[in-house]
Amino acid sequence: MEQITIKDVAKACGVGVSTVSRAINDHPNINEETKQLVLDKIRELGYVPNNSARNLKRSEGKAIAVLVKGMTNPFFNVMVKIMEEDIISRGYTMVLQHVDPKEDEADVALELTKEKRLSGIVFLGGIVTRTGEKLGQLNVPYVVSTIGAPLEGVREDEYSSVAVDDEREGKKATKFLLDKGYRKIAIFAGAEDDTSVGMLRLSGYKKAYEEAGITPDERLIRYLPKDNEEYSFDTGYASAKKLIEEGVDFDAVFAIADVMAVGACRAFLETGRKIPKDVAVMGFDGIDLTRFYLPSITTVAQPIKQMAIETSRLLFEVIEGKKHKHLVFEAVITERETT
Amino acid sequence: MEQITIKDVAKACGVGVSTVSRAINDHPNINEETKQLVLDKIRELGYVPNNSARNLKRSEGKAIAVLVKGMTNPFFNVMVKIMEEDIISRGYTMVLQHVDPKEDEADVALELTKEKRLSGIVFLGGIVTRTGEKLGQLNVPYVVSTIGAPLEGVREDEYSSVAVDDEREGKKATKFLLDKGYRKIAIFAGAEDDTSVGMLRLSGYKKAYEEAGITPDERLIRYLPKDNEEYSFDTGYASAKKLIEEGVDFDAVFAIADVMAVGACRAFLETGRKIPKDVAVMGFDGIDLTRFYLPSITTVAQPIKQMAIETSRLLFEVIEGKKHKHLVFEAVITERETT
Repeated sequence: MEQITIKDVAKACGVGVSTVSRAINDHPNINEETKQLVLDKIRELGYVPNNSARNLKRSEGKAIAVLVKGMTNPFFNVMVKIMEEDIISRGYTMVLQHVDPKEDEADVALELTKEKRLSGIVFLGGIVTRTGEKLGQLNVPYVVSTIGAPLEGVREDEYSSVAVDDEREGKKATKFLLDKGYRKIAIFAGAEDDTSVGMLRLSGYKKAYEEAGITPDERLIRYLPKDNEEYSFDTGYASAKKLIEEGVDFDAVFAIADVMAVGACRAFLETGRKIPKDVAVMGFDGIDLTRFYLPSITTVAQPIKQMAIETSRLLFEVIEGKKHKHLVFEAVITERETT
Repeated sequence: MEQITIKDVAKACGVGVSTVSRAINDHPNINEETKQLVLDKIRELGYVPNNSARNLKRSEGKAIAVLVKGMTNPFFNVMVKIMEEDIISRGYTMVLQHVDPKEDEADVALELTKEKRLSGIVFLGGIVTRTGEKLGQLNVPYVVSTIGAPLEGVREDEYSSVAVDDEREGKKATKFLLDKGYRKIAIFAGAEDDTSVGMLRLSGYKKAYEEAGITPDERLIRYLPKDNEEYSFDTGYASAKKLIEEGVDFDAVFAIADVMAVGACRAFLETGRKIPKDVAVMGFDGIDLTRFYLPSITTVAQPIKQMAIETSRLLFEVIEGKKHKHLVFEAVITERETT
């Protein structure tokens, strides 16, 4: 049987997690009736509050910072929501700060650690590998989430990580398209100087072509423009339009983020192209929208929820004195209507 | 000429807002070259750092809490990102906490105010009007954003608000569809016991029908199910499927959130219905996705960015000693391919 969590109790009572916390901690801001309902339900379900939840009052004021690169991507949105629930249920607050594409998140993190109550940091989305030296100066534990490559300049036992192997998954996606018979696969990659997931997924794309013994047209590799390096509907749309305008010959697009795949679909469909007959489209991430778009979009689905849960769990394990860990998840190709 | 902001400087330098802050405040974590570049650009553009930015160091540690109901809605995502930029640029950190649909945000807020460094609160999305009494106990200024109705039990000079008039806009949307000749407009509303934007937009729908002298079939009013009251692709999809299964006669759908309109479109298209020929679809909010979905979705577009900017601005004005204000924006019907 799965372990009962504070969220299960909250759901069963039709209240929020913080209300359950208040009931457990005998907090004044909860009415007696609700408190009784929650406590009854806790007994009924056999929920055992963990130490962190019981210590809610004592740790009051402590915070976890989540630094997000690419904040308008719904992928991170879901992760932030899940992590926030866990952070709150342990009696911490979550400080959220988004990091600009050109900004070095290590600088942002160093500034945040001046705040004495900061207990840990989560880096979400595309940390740049050249920041190893600065990261070494951080005086709180941190977890690097959703970038599938080791950090340079930091020892493995000095940080935790949760990710898929972005290079392997990029290769898997490209091989999937090659196996289906597509030969002229355009890749909508990250920025040209990207040193993060964009670079890794592109590297996987190149390896798949290499293994297949085919040399793709160089013009099939599309980088994000320097003035807009966000993965978004907009940049996917613009990249597709540009590909068409330049007269590049292509039969498929592998967008390294679902949001770009959505923008690309719109561009192809409104210029009269049929998907997948004229052009196949494949995304990466596995956001909900890929199911609801029409056509629904084939994607490399990362296990978003588990990754979020593990990110938060690892961070608190280290805060409680355990060793750093590195978790690599497997993404799953979810085939839909665009291939 | 528009006033130059810290964001303009950051953009011109290709760095983040916090890097500009660091340059202004002579912060150690910035390299000399970048600092010089930023300071040169500040002079060139004629940017005048405001007091808050100059006081970055002094106010270090202070926080603004943003409480979000409906966190997976991209509408709030955009608002949070814009507010966060402003909050950071004033030297504060942003604490983000999402509130469950059934949870009373006043309880969450009261708990947060025990944290002495909390300087203000933003309520985003659907505050329940019955919480007036508890809100009166808050010892920090707060802004209620994106709900277009006065709070009950709180004096107007005790809080600020930023919103569109949700009832008026709901009426406008319905009238738009009635004027186009649709007579059997299903509304995908909020929960049946909703006392927030869901209730207001539904009330506008009823008023438009009343003014047109038509009595709509009661089964055209679709509430969210009790076990899932989030505005989402999923709930929009499920509502559309149920409408079809129950054999209700309808020629249009007005979904009170764009995400639900997207789910509805998918359900209609995959069951062989043509949009807008067989059924028209109209959303509410104006999220980016409505432009990129196929068909693109007609929506009541709220001025998201301005609302976010004003929400943050009003809060800091009150923190600096000014009076509370109430801003009501006008939403704009953006007609696209679904009507």
